[in-house]
Amino acid sequence: MNNLTEREIIQVFANQFDYKKGFPLGFEDDVSAVPLSRTMWIIVKTDMLVASTDVPPGMTTQEAARKAVVATVSDFAAKGVKPRALMVSLGLPKPTRATKIRDIARGLDQAAREYDCDIIGGDTNQAEDFVIDIAGVGIADPRKLVRRDGAQPGDIVAVTGPFGKCAAGLRILMRRDRRHTSKYHSLVNAVRRPAAQLTKGIALARSGGVTSSIDSSDGLASSLHQIARASRVGISLDAVPIAADVKRFANEFHLSATDLALYGGEEYELVITARPKNFPELQKRIGSLIRIGIVEGARHGLTACFEGKRSRIEQRGWEHFT
Amino acid sequence: MNNLTEREIIQVFANQFDYKKGFPLGFEDDVSAVPLSRTMWIIVKTDMLVASTDVPPGMTTQEAARKAVVATVSDFAAKGVKPRALMVSLGLPKPTRATKIRDIARGLDQAAREYDCDIIGGDTNQAEDFVIDIAGVGIADPRKLVRRDGAQPGDIVAVTGPFGKCAAGLRILMRRDRRHTSKYHSLVNAVRRPAAQLTKGIALARSGGVTSSIDSSDGLASSLHQIARASRVGISLDAVPIAADVKRFANEFHLSATDLALYGGEEYELVITARPKNFPELQKRIGSLIRIGIVEGARHGLTACFEGKRSRIEQRGWEHFT
Repeated sequence: MNNLTEREIIQVFANQFDYKKGFPLGFEDDVSAVPLSRTMWIIVKTDMLVASTDVPPGMTTQEAARKAVVATVSDFAAKGVKPRALMVSLGLPKPTRATKIRDIARGLDQAAREYDCDIIGGDTNQAEDFVIDIAGVGIADPRKLVRRDGAQPGDIVAVTGPFGKCAAGLRILMRRDRRHTSKYHSLVNAVRRPAAQLTKGIALARSGGVTSSIDSSDGLASSLHQIARASRVGISLDAVPIAADVKRFANEFHLSATDLALYGGEEYELVITARPKNFPELQKRIGSLIRIGIVEGARHGLTACFEGKRSRIEQRGWEHFT
Repeated sequence: MNNLTEREIIQVFANQFDYKKGFPLGFEDDVSAVPLSRTMWIIVKTDMLVASTDVPPGMTTQEAARKAVVATVSDFAAKGVKPRALMVSLGLPKPTRATKIRDIARGLDQAAREYDCDIIGGDTNQAEDFVIDIAGVGIADPRKLVRRDGAQPGDIVAVTGPFGKCAAGLRILMRRDRRHTSKYHSLVNAVRRPAAQLTKGIALARSGGVTSSIDSSDGLASSLHQIARASRVGISLDAVPIAADVKRFANEFHLSATDLALYGGEEYELVITARPKNFPELQKRIGSLIRIGIVEGARHGLTACFEGKRSRIEQRGWEHFT
């Protein structure tokens, strides 16, 4: 095999490590856990931002540093856990100019303040690629943490917001297209200044009504596939939540808005499942919760049923822009 | 300023972040801490290995992956804290061949077993440089953790082993010199298969007699400077602990063995200070503890006194081999 996919790479690691031993969350949940007691786990997550694949043209250094934190915080959000502290590891190409370092520090600090966590240490290194790795640390009661593998047939599938903005915004940035950058400001902004749904994630977990949750950084379709695989269920979508601007953009550029929403990525909405009896209460608490489908038995796989036609949703994830 | 040093970069971050708030260990100790209670802190450390600057010719992928873990474990060792779990973030250049991924997994697994900790999760990314970032997590009683800033005038300065092997071994590897590679096998081996002094570090912390401790990954001189700066003391060396093979090597290549020992780096011995009354007991417990000097008042700075001559030890650290 010449070029393993991310999933194949993870499989190699899962095979090498005796991962059943110390892994109360499994090897593939959004975060990892170190159990301290029956009621207290340390929650850890690392996420690496690599400039050559994660930072499109038009994104500033400060925005890239902020985004690195958002990516890690988003995984905590999906589990309903507040990150308390962040560690920052930097790989920096030469020359390491003071202005660039200050921009990195500002972006990190901005994000840490937004999500109310402290940056407590780090490591700096010379590298050929600009790399920011953010490790987040928090504490959770395992009985309240929302896993990936709890979805059950009959559950409602919902998301915290509409999709497709980042996929569309990225296309505009990649074309370095100034006119459309200002016309579709909200789409470009979604790429440059993403937001983790930490408040919503914590409120959802506290409600007790959520059966599974994942962040959507790998794309909506991929996130649904991951919940389905972890929970051993099928999912049937009856709506794809598409942002209004994405429809306009798709129209102008003759693209499929549905594809932008399903197969985009680097969006940090949450994808959850909930028991039907709890759903109205959840919607009341989390204003923006959008119902998009229903959990079925595993044999049904992942399908969409729009305008009376049933079709399979591909296991296709977010492809980096390179 | 065109090219900030690592210290200057850290200073930019320390200025940006409100680092006095949530930093019980300060911004510059070997590890960082998240306080849970008066008797329990979460200890975190991230360390990034970058192939272009940290992996010399002649070091295999498996050895590089193992070394990435050793670097993080070594910081825990210096504080006398056992790392419980490790997170792995990878930046992988294309093509990501299965053999390479398996070698990485084997190296990580090997090190995790050596230091009895679990690899509990991670993140993989495409990158232009091969990067392994290891985040370690542990638990410590803050009253038993050995800080950098506790050295007091009158303390004895000691190290857990002789120095210079990595600096010498690296020179041999950089020359791609087969004959000397086999002649100085122990020196090359010190680079390719370094060891963290975790057992010794934990025993030293348990003894209660150690006033400060640091790992020597930045070089012996740099480590002494860091203890002196953090503790606001001076240090006078009366011996530089040089490995026997390093003397032979320095002789053959007309190099200063003292310089190799003082200004090398990527060695993972511990540099400690201890009250004189506790030192004999420590030496009994830790077989290989070598006395190298004494702590003085800050005004004396960092000096060495060999053969009756007193000289200043430069604040010069480990320079990567590029």
